[in-house]
Amino acid sequence: MKSYDVVIIGAGPSGIVTGVTAKKQNPEKSFLIIMEEEKGLVPCGIPYIFHDLDDISQNLMGPAPFVKAGGEVLVDTVTGVDIRSKTLETGSGKSFSYSKLVFATGSTPTIPTFIRGYDLENVEYIRKSYSYINGLMNRIGQAENIVVIGGGFIGAEVAEQLAKYKEKTVTLVEMENHCLFRAFSEDFAVLADEHLVNAGVNILTGCTVKKLQGSGGKVESVILEDGRSIKADLVISAIGYKPRTELAGKAGLQLTSNGTIRVDRYMRTEEKDVYAVGDCAHATGFITGRTDNIMLASTATAEARVLGYNLFSISLLHSFAGILSVFSTELDGYVFASAGAIEQTAREANVDYVVGRFEDVDRHPGSLPGAKKIKIKVIVSPENGQIIGGEIYGGKSVGEMINIISLAIQKYVTVYELISFQTGTHPLLTTAPTKYTLVKVCEDAIVNIKDRFL
Amino acid sequence: MKSYDVVIIGAGPSGIVTGVTAKKQNPEKSFLIIMEEEKGLVPCGIPYIFHDLDDISQNLMGPAPFVKAGGEVLVDTVTGVDIRSKTLETGSGKSFSYSKLVFATGSTPTIPTFIRGYDLENVEYIRKSYSYINGLMNRIGQAENIVVIGGGFIGAEVAEQLAKYKEKTVTLVEMENHCLFRAFSEDFAVLADEHLVNAGVNILTGCTVKKLQGSGGKVESVILEDGRSIKADLVISAIGYKPRTELAGKAGLQLTSNGTIRVDRYMRTEEKDVYAVGDCAHATGFITGRTDNIMLASTATAEARVLGYNLFSISLLHSFAGILSVFSTELDGYVFASAGAIEQTAREANVDYVVGRFEDVDRHPGSLPGAKKIKIKVIVSPENGQIIGGEIYGGKSVGEMINIISLAIQKYVTVYELISFQTGTHPLLTTAPTKYTLVKVCEDAIVNIKDRFL
Repeated sequence: MKSYDVVIIGAGPSGIVTGVTAKKQNPEKSFLIIMEEEKGLVPCGIPYIFHDLDDISQNLMGPAPFVKAGGEVLVDTVTGVDIRSKTLETGSGKSFSYSKLVFATGSTPTIPTFIRGYDLENVEYIRKSYSYINGLMNRIGQAENIVVIGGGFIGAEVAEQLAKYKEKTVTLVEMENHCLFRAFSEDFAVLADEHLVNAGVNILTGCTVKKLQGSGGKVESVILEDGRSIKADLVISAIGYKPRTELAGKAGLQLTSNGTIRVDRYMRTEEKDVYAVGDCAHATGFITGRTDNIMLASTATAEARVLGYNLFSISLLHSFAGILSVFSTELDGYVFASAGAIEQTAREANVDYVVGRFEDVDRHPGSLPGAKKIKIKVIVSPENGQIIGGEIYGGKSVGEMINIISLAIQKYVTVYELISFQTGTHPLLTTAPTKYTLVKVCEDAIVNIKDRFL
Repeated sequence: MKSYDVVIIGAGPSGIVTGVTAKKQNPEKSFLIIMEEEKGLVPCGIPYIFHDLDDISQNLMGPAPFVKAGGEVLVDTVTGVDIRSKTLETGSGKSFSYSKLVFATGSTPTIPTFIRGYDLENVEYIRKSYSYINGLMNRIGQAENIVVIGGGFIGAEVAEQLAKYKEKTVTLVEMENHCLFRAFSEDFAVLADEHLVNAGVNILTGCTVKKLQGSGGKVESVILEDGRSIKADLVISAIGYKPRTELAGKAGLQLTSNGTIRVDRYMRTEEKDVYAVGDCAHATGFITGRTDNIMLASTATAEARVLGYNLFSISLLHSFAGILSVFSTELDGYVFASAGAIEQTAREANVDYVVGRFEDVDRHPGSLPGAKKIKIKVIVSPENGQIIGGEIYGGKSVGEMINIISLAIQKYVTVYELISFQTGTHPLLTTAPTKYTLVKVCEDAIVNIKDRFL
């Protein structure tokens, strides 16, 4: 039986980053990643395979950096883990022993078994699998009427990309009143709807799917609760993901109520020498302090780095105070990004807050070619002015601006401090220095904090 | 004699932002801004008037937000200030008394009187004046061979814009070995040179101008120290700016050795009720703790906000720990940005440092349309890992990325903390989460810190 110091199950972003980071810290140790498919995909790039990228081969992500660092990889499926004897078995009949084991098994699309007809042919999902997505591309090529169920990030991005094929009719069905409603407050989510419509997507918000109808075993239409029927020769369900933790559960690891593997802030499970990281691992919200079922590659890789540095001994004390959701997407050429609390999540978690708002253009003067409107909101604790969340809408610069807010939240920065925030500004790149958006939005929050206490 | 609670001399970014901020905090007080010209320009937008903006009218910046807040403006020139009697006089013969006086008199181009022929016709400058720049545009329109002296930001940007007129020959003469050498270390400055050449600018670096030659009082050529002669029917000198503090000096205010008005961290001069802000005010470097002659609208507006909040009573304790230079520019479609210390300024100031470096592409996968190379460097204290500077080169996202580094410096963030920095990433907007540039560059710095102590 071959033995490794570290075996990592899964080669998604968290598995690979754990492997690379830990191997670099511990070059003398032997590392093995066991991965199910030889070719991996950049997970967040999947929607762009359908249009903007020329080909699925443009979206590959493999263990090359891990192999370069001296790790080994095996294409196989782990079928069982014996935590007591520190061994595992694979589908091809191999056995390995390990000193330390990392679960990086990720997540899998939620199958809407509660919708009648979910098992018809051409009812598909966005699985993070090369072979599956390759097959889905063929189905998309042949489809004329596509219905996407779910207007979260994946659903919205897939619908936006598919609508670029002008000969196809693309309909997006979302249960909530607006798309992206989990990541943005209403005034921003409304803009997401508008941009999706402008991009050619038929949006049906506030609508629930009753059943999928077909003939000859193939889907033909989507029937809504209100009785409407939408023609569909392809349905793509994007209603969320669930952690892949059957193997961990079978091995006897503690799972939380939402099905993730219970871990501490160094990503250690309750079993010695067993770790979990990424979508399959439990996470606590930075603001709320409660279980958070966020599934983002950026979050997963941050966890993976914490694990990579601390796997053999605690060497990097800056572990997690909790998971901060930082989202960004582009729809119809406009960027939507949010970090930390938004109004509805703050209310749900009983977090007291005031908002600050500001609008401007993202270049100065605004007459410069390519200038776009920029709209920003911060969510702030009225007690001490601490920034606990933010949302931004605008041009491409928003993709990195949100990370300024993200750092501000993580470093407990207050709106008072940001009044004198020294920034770089440039006509072609940012708002004017006289009204740098992140400073002005803090000024507005300060006014609103004062009003609150009048 | 009319009396105001606050008189501000100057309507550049620092004058206007001081006025708006202080008036909003003190709506019951009367405010007057005295400005020399009716129309003001967005200072950092001036180079873009010459090409990318259709017209000078697209680059106006006026006191409208100040007037809207309830302030008054007067187009006039202050000719004398009597600090003892708290009065001032203007060129048109008016007199005013004030309770508080703010100098926001800005800066003016350095005239190269040490270069023979500097006083020839068609030897021009980038003055922050509507009427002057309007005149310069006409001269540019008629010129065929333009020589720009000085490869700092203004010189480089002006040359890049003028080179877009394919019928004009544009030459840039820079004394240092590379353009942008005050803001970037050599490996970045080299790229600036390359992009300027690619944009059609003839670059002569490591060259000093000996004299300007002309006939009939008009410039005709630029003669270099090495004897070369460059044909020039228009010369634009961009060798720097100096603070406009003659009025303040005449009024008896203390000036520093570099000609700025001495102020404390709340922008108070040594005279009671007299303040100075922006380019005319003294500044201390955040990293070096020494006099810094940085002149940036973004810095000036940050100072102006500190003054605006603290003018009548100290209400915002977050004043300056010092000036942080945060620069950004775009040349030939590529962005260059830096914040805080760079290698040569760290060495000059005897700051101990190590660097971290990383390169990637600014989208993921890198095969996405529009993806550009991104190159990042951080300057880090080896003692505690604190980030004290950074440089980034890449696409437009760099314009806001530099502000993440800027916030990190201002909040004393270490490279160890940023290993677990939670960021938003998106295929169309950022590098991949597995190798987010700012995290990877910190990893590299950590390796280099360890190597240092081996």
